[in-house]
Parts: sequence; C-alpha cells; structure tokens
Amino acid sequence: MFNLFSLDSGICAPSGFFADGLSAGLKAPQNNGGAKPLDVAFVHSHTPCDVFALFTTNTFDAAPIKHAKELIAAHNGALKSNFVLVNAKNANAMTGKEGVADVKNLLRSLQELHPQIQNPLMSSTGVIGVRLPMDKIASVFGAIDLNARNPHNAANAILTTDRFAKEIAFEVKTDSGTFTIGAMCKGAGMIHPSLATMLCFVTTDACVPREMGQELLRLACEESFNAVSVDGDMSTNDTVLLLANGQSGAFEREAFLHALKTALHKLATDMARDGEGANKLVAFEVRGAKNRDEAKRAARALATSLLVKTAIFGCDPNWGRIASTIGASGVCCDEMTLTISFGDVCVYRCGAILFDAPTEARAAEVMRADSLRIVCDLGQGEGAFVAYGCDLGYNYVKINADYRS
Amino acid sequence: MFNLFSLDSGICAPSGFFADGLSAGLKAPQNNGGAKPLDVAFVHSHTPCDVFALFTTNTFDAAPIKHAKELIAAHNGALKSNFVLVNAKNANAMTGKEGVADVKNLLRSLQELHPQIQNPLMSSTGVIGVRLPMDKIASVFGAIDLNARNPHNAANAILTTDRFAKEIAFEVKTDSGTFTIGAMCKGAGMIHPSLATMLCFVTTDACVPREMGQELLRLACEESFNAVSVDGDMSTNDTVLLLANGQSGAFEREAFLHALKTALHKLATDMARDGEGANKLVAFEVRGAKNRDEAKRAARALATSLLVKTAIFGCDPNWGRIASTIGASGVCCDEMTLTISFGDVCVYRCGAILFDAPTEARAAEVMRADSLRIVCDLGQGEGAFVAYGCDLGYNYVKINADYRS
Repeated sequence: MFNLFSLDSGICAPSGFFADGLSAGLKAPQNNGGAKPLDVAFVHSHTPCDVFALFTTNTFDAAPIKHAKELIAAHNGALKSNFVLVNAKNANAMTGKEGVADVKNLLRSLQELHPQIQNPLMSSTGVIGVRLPMDKIASVFGAIDLNARNPHNAANAILTTDRFAKEIAFEVKTDSGTFTIGAMCKGAGMIHPSLATMLCFVTTDACVPREMGQELLRLACEESFNAVSVDGDMSTNDTVLLLANGQSGAFEREAFLHALKTALHKLATDMARDGEGANKLVAFEVRGAKNRDEAKRAARALATSLLVKTAIFGCDPNWGRIASTIGASGVCCDEMTLTISFGDVCVYRCGAILFDAPTEARAAEVMRADSLRIVCDLGQGEGAFVAYGCDLGYNYVKINADYRS
Repeated sequence: MFNLFSLDSGICAPSGFFADGLSAGLKAPQNNGGAKPLDVAFVHSHTPCDVFALFTTNTFDAAPIKHAKELIAAHNGALKSNFVLVNAKNANAMTGKEGVADVKNLLRSLQELHPQIQNPLMSSTGVIGVRLPMDKIASVFGAIDLNARNPHNAANAILTTDRFAKEIAFEVKTDSGTFTIGAMCKGAGMIHPSLATMLCFVTTDACVPREMGQELLRLACEESFNAVSVDGDMSTNDTVLLLANGQSGAFEREAFLHALKTALHKLATDMARDGEGANKLVAFEVRGAKNRDEAKRAARALATSLLVKTAIFGCDPNWGRIASTIGASGVCCDEMTLTISFGDVCVYRCGAILFDAPTEARAAEVMRADSLRIVCDLGQGEGAFVAYGCDLGYNYVKINADYRS
C-alpha cells in the first residue's frame, strides 16, 4: 500500500536538495530594460547522491555527455555526485576534444570556488557546433548559493523554445516510510522516442539501492519519454539524470517505480503538449497488435507522420491518413480487422466506413479539443502501446526555419 | 554506343501509344465559368503491351492495385494489356471488396463501349476511404477517343496537389536500331522512398524481353523514385507501370536501362522540386560511408528530417542539424572523419569547425538557390548514395491541414 501526494516544490521537494537559476547572458533579453532571462541552472544535494543516467543514442553525443560517461566509467558505474550544472542556448555538441575540455575547465573552476562540490556533472542544450561561451558561464559561479531553494528558477533557466516550465513533485507514503521525488525537464523540439529525448533531472531522498536505480529509471522512461515524439529528430544532448541522496531512509520498490513513472509520464506529456508550434496533445493508442513491439511501431509511426500531424492541426478527422500510416509501418494488420476511432467516435470498423456527415462532425468536434486520443485496434492480438505526439502547424516552421538567430 | 534525343510528346512519343485527359467533374472548377479541370486520363496502345509494374508496400494497398495484382497473377506474370485508366481526387483505398468491385465494374463498362480494350488496368490517387464516384467516371467513357494523342492532357489530368505536370520522352538511337521511351508521373505529397512512391506511367516501343522488363524497372526506380522523399509518408496507391508494345522492333539493354534511368530520375527530381509547399530541390549526397546501405540510410534520414527541411526553408546553413541527423541515423561515423559542405562551401572538416562569418555567408548564399546539394563525407569507406528532398515551409502545412476540403 502506498499513496502519492503532490507537492509544489519541484526538484527541491526531496530532503537535502537545492537548486536555482541564474542569468549568464546566454539568452537575449526579452525586452529593453526587462529582467535578464535565466539561462544557467544548478541542482545540488548537501550529501552525495548515487547517479543513474540515460543518454542519447545519437553517435555524435555532446561534450557534456562524453564527460559524464567518462566520469561514470571511471567510478565503475558507482559515481557519487552532489552537483549538476545546466546551460541553455549552446549544446556544446560537435565541438570535439576542445568541447570536453571546456566542460572540465568550467567544472574545475566551479569546484575551486565551491569546494563542497564533488564530481559535478554538466548538461547543455541549444545550438550545435559552437564552442561554449566560457567567460559568460563562469561569470555566474561566484553568485551560486548552494543553499538556494528556487526550483522554479532552475526549471525556467533550462528552457529553450519551450513555452512553459515543466516540474513535478510527489511525496510517497508507504508502509515502510515516506520519501519524495522531484523532477524537471525541458524539451520542445528535436524530440523523438529513443532513450532519453530531452533534458530531465530527477531528485529523490529515497534510499534507492545502487543495483536497482538504473533499471527503474529505464522502466519509467520506456512509457514516458520514449513514447513521445514532437518531430522525429533525436538530439545530441538528450539526458535523464536521477540523483538519489537517501536522506529519507525509506524505499519501497513498487511505490518508487509508480511515483517515478507518474512523474515522468506527466513531464513527457507536458513536453508533447509544448511541442514546438504545437496546439494539441495527442495520444495515439494502438491496441490489438500481434505483440507490444508491433503496437509500439504503429503508434510511433502515427505520432511521427507529417500527414497525420498536419491533419490534426487542421482538426480534420482524416482517418484515411491514419490507416495509410499504419499500413506503411509494416506491422501485421488487415482492412477487415482494423477499427479507427477519434475519442469515442468510431469512423471505420472492420471494412465498414462509418464516416457519414454526422459522424464526421462528431469526430471533428473531438479534434477541436486541446487534448485528444486516437484509437486504432488492429484486431490481430493483445499488443498495446500509447505514443504521445502533437500537431504540426505554421509555428513549427516559423520556430525552426531560423532557429539560430 | 547509343545516343538520347529529347522529344516533346511525353507518353505518346513511342510508336502506337495514344493518351488523353478528360473532365469527369471530380476536381472542382478553378474559377466560375472557367474550363472544367481534367481529372481522368487514359493511356492506350493499338497493339498489346507487356506490363511491368511496381506497387506500394503499404499493407493497405488500394483497390486498383489489388485488382492489378490479381490480373497479373491470373496471367502468371505475363499480362498483356493495352489500356490504363487513371483518376484523380479519389484513391479508392480502404474501400474493401466493394472498392475492387468498383474497379472491375468500371473497366467492364469501358470494354463494352470500346471492345478493342484488352485487360485494362486502373490507377487512382486522392482521398482515402471514400467510394469512387462511379457515375461521374463512367460518364466520360463515351467521349474516349482511342486515337487521341494528347499526352499533356493526360499528364495534367492525373495531378492532385502538384503545381506542374511531369513528362519526359527520349528517342534512343543504338547500333541495333532506334526505340523511344515516354513517361509521365504525378506526386507531390505522401512521398517517401519505398518501392514506387507515386503514380508513374512509362510507355515504350522497345522490344523489351519479357523476362528482363521487371528487373530493369526495379533498377531504374532504385536511384530515382526510391531516392526521393517529400514527407516520409508512403501512400496506399504508389504505382509505376511500364507498358512495352515492341513496335520499334529494336532493343539494346544498356541503352534502354540508361534511357529509363534518365527519364525516371528527371521525373523523380521534378517530384521533389514540386513537393507540397516546397521551394527548393535538395540533393543530399552521402559519401565515404562504410557501404552503400549505410550511405542510403544516412542520406534518406537527411531528406526526411523536419529540422533539416525547415532549416533549408529558412536558408539557414545549420550544419549542426545535419550532423545530428547523421548521428541519429545509426550509421558508422565519427566526428573526427566527418566532412559537411553546402555546395562547394565546406563548413566542418574532421573535427574542425570552419564556420566563420564569411563562410556562413557563402553557405547561406548556396542555400538561397532553387536547387542545392549538401554533401556529407563520413570518412569510413566507399559507400555513396544521393537522396533527393525538398524544404518544408508554411505551404506544406497549409496544403495538408485541410486537404479533404
């Protein structure tokens, strides 16, 4: 038995965690005379944390990821760290050995100013192929207050083209004690299911067993971040970090996994809802597939199809594109067993086209909502998967046609 | 030794072929009082043709494709036909057994009116999941003139969201005689490399050996239609038909294959140039891959990436997205061997970022052209492939957000 209670304090909700956002002048000011935008964040624990991490599978992983992998390997997978530094606007990817040296130099000068910091990690997001503005980032190190508890500032500092900050926290009461999980993430474009697909930082005071954390993180990501697609592109910088400092003294596997899944699922769907230029969150549910892998393949194909995404933008219940995309995905299916519904409105069932004018109007009504579900039953077996995606409209083009400027 | 000479008469260029476009009222009139748009086409040969065909691999292949496959199978792959009927605006896909019966009924009434027609085939393109407007299509059958030579009308009638007709013809002079190839195609959206990826009709009076035609067609499509992507979506209706009536009495394998490849390559790049909402034709050349398959995978990933396509729309030489896409494609590559150029302007070479302001300006200049080449050398081997694609701009969204209306 366990219960979850929502908290408002993001990644600072678990005991012993501190965080803040600072302004290093990486983001251009929004308007003349306005406050300078936050663009550097940190997460700190007063006691050392076990670190569990998932990284992008992009061959050209960014310099901070190369550095983190090196550090984790040097500690034989049992790294203890108490600090993560994050910057927006520059991905520090495709920057070669110099990029990795930049990470090391920044973290070294950080430790010189703050000797409590142990084995710090770094994450970056932004433009690829430009060296980090070292002086700007280092300029805020003196202002870092390791006792600051400003999780919302941290969650805002890591955003790039995101329209809103994404945070969540739960207190988890179990028979064997109470512990807390907090998380924040960023990600609006270059998002596609494959391992971690954006930056996400999770803190917990649960006593997560060293040998269990990595597998729990993988399981929780599988149906959250790995089920989300905004644009089919996988970034060089995708990272999910879980920092566990054990301060609560409590742990219960099922309760922890449930809370972690719930937190990451909320952040992942927030990410799709905040997809670049997106107006709608869409759940693509594929049921009745031969097996789970086929359900996943078909659901992800729907979440990625440009024709499906633009039809959703136009609130057009164009079920033919749904069928065509499933047919093109290569999964086992048949016109005579397929069923397609927009929400509760079934438009095609096992060869029968149920798309008369009143049905079309009801389906179009479903599509006008901010959030909708498209359900396809393949009628081939028991496999099921839900992928999350968004519509694709003019703003996606606008944001991405000249991202660098 | 052989030479190619361009002709202007499209699919009617080879001896014995006739074609026309008619208006069945499937397309809405462009403006009040204007001529009714052409929307039904036919291709006819006065003598029977060997038929070679490639069809979509979409599981939900359209009714006319099911019918054609059935007919080809019934003739043990040695089908002789002298007539193809094509309609726009309605794909006759996801229409079940009734859809196939519609094809058969239409073709039967056509043969009743024109007893010369043998084993007619049908192709359709347009909206999925709506029964064919039988009466409208049948209404033009009486007006079909089997001696008409209006290839441009035919090429215009098969268009949907295309902005221009796509036709080509060559006379091929070889040591062993002269023969001719003509072709037309349509396709602007739902185009992605996998077998045939649109409607394409090729006519020839060459004496193509029965056992050779299918393989020659496959080879010619491999580096033309199968190398093109507009939006990553594979249609239910994609078809390439080659009709060979042998009237020239001549054939030479290398000359025929060369002419066929040249014709299909021109049509395929025209198709990318005419991609829905596209402004630019882009050749994505990947060299130095471990092998050809890896080069193809990377080149196709570039042609499909939304972030790359929107950057091209914005004339932004965002080489980081090129690198990230190659890295995400899973091919063997390394930052230290990779080279990226826009046209002749190299922006990244083996770890060195050559992207200073003058270089960026020159690269942006390359991107402002109507047609450009992006070259990536992976430095891993000898594999090479060129994929063709286009930019993605506001008009793609506009065209696809409400296609059905």
